[in-house]
Amino acid sequence: MKNILGTNVIAQVAIIVEDIEKTSQAYADFFGVEKPKVVWTDGYDKAQTEYKGEPSQARAQLAFFDMGSLQLELIQPDEFPSTWRDFLEEHGEGVQHLAFVVDGLKEKVSEMENTEMPLIQKGEYPGGRYAYMDTVKDLKVVLELLENDES
Amino acid sequence: MKNILGTNVIAQVAIIVEDIEKTSQAYADFFGVEKPKVVWTDGYDKAQTEYKGEPSQARAQLAFFDMGSLQLELIQPDEFPSTWRDFLEEHGEGVQHLAFVVDGLKEKVSEMENTEMPLIQKGEYPGGRYAYMDTVKDLKVVLELLENDES
Repeated sequence: MKNILGTNVIAQVAIIVEDIEKTSQAYADFFGVEKPKVVWTDGYDKAQTEYKGEPSQARAQLAFFDMGSLQLELIQPDEFPSTWRDFLEEHGEGVQHLAFVVDGLKEKVSEMENTEMPLIQKGEYPGGRYAYMDTVKDLKVVLELLENDES
Repeated sequence: MKNILGTNVIAQVAIIVEDIEKTSQAYADFFGVEKPKVVWTDGYDKAQTEYKGEPSQARAQLAFFDMGSLQLELIQPDEFPSTWRDFLEEHGEGVQHLAFVVDGLKEKVSEMENTEMPLIQKGEYPGGRYAYMDTVKDLKVVLELLENDES
């Protein structure tokens, strides 16, 4: 039996929200921590975002909470088409994806596409890159692969 | 700043599914592990399930996968009213709750109810008890509190 990702360690649980300032304040209050700084994902020039195979100018605001060994991530999508906005429109606010840190992202994406789990969206972030895979049919949640450059 | 739960360690991420045999097989195949045994929650005589303050005969089938420091839990609700069935009917399959192991479950439930996060459902399981709290308005996901008896 093979583990396609080479890991089963969940690195992030991500929740799509409509108002990241309000929801991150609610998390901060509930867990007794400082409200984290909300950051924008990069624009197309840096992130080179592709959504369904086409360049996309979609961006999102993000906030991260350290929760034990993983991060809880809040994501507020902008108005452009993205996997984040799709989720909000189809399901409303809630948990959209589970993220795993992998080695060899490109090969893992190919391997998953061969098992009918297509790439939905990809892009670069400072220090690495991500790929959202459409695993909803089989796994009932989107999986995100993260590849960090060696530092 | 106070952490009401006394912890920020996510113990379980739970996904509501329609066909637990099929989805647990898909997870087993994807992560290269044996399909775990699917178990039924106890009936009312043992579980003393209460849903919205009333005794309930609702049960569910559960399957657990160890994913790093936490468990991924699959839940297939039966046909009786429960927070599990509510989620399936309102949202379809997907991530329904995040679980935290707490000390002093009863006091934590009271404290959360005082901050407008009402108890939705509670019950006993072998070795402990659980409480689902309606945190959706503020936190966009249900939280489950778990209290395990000292062994």
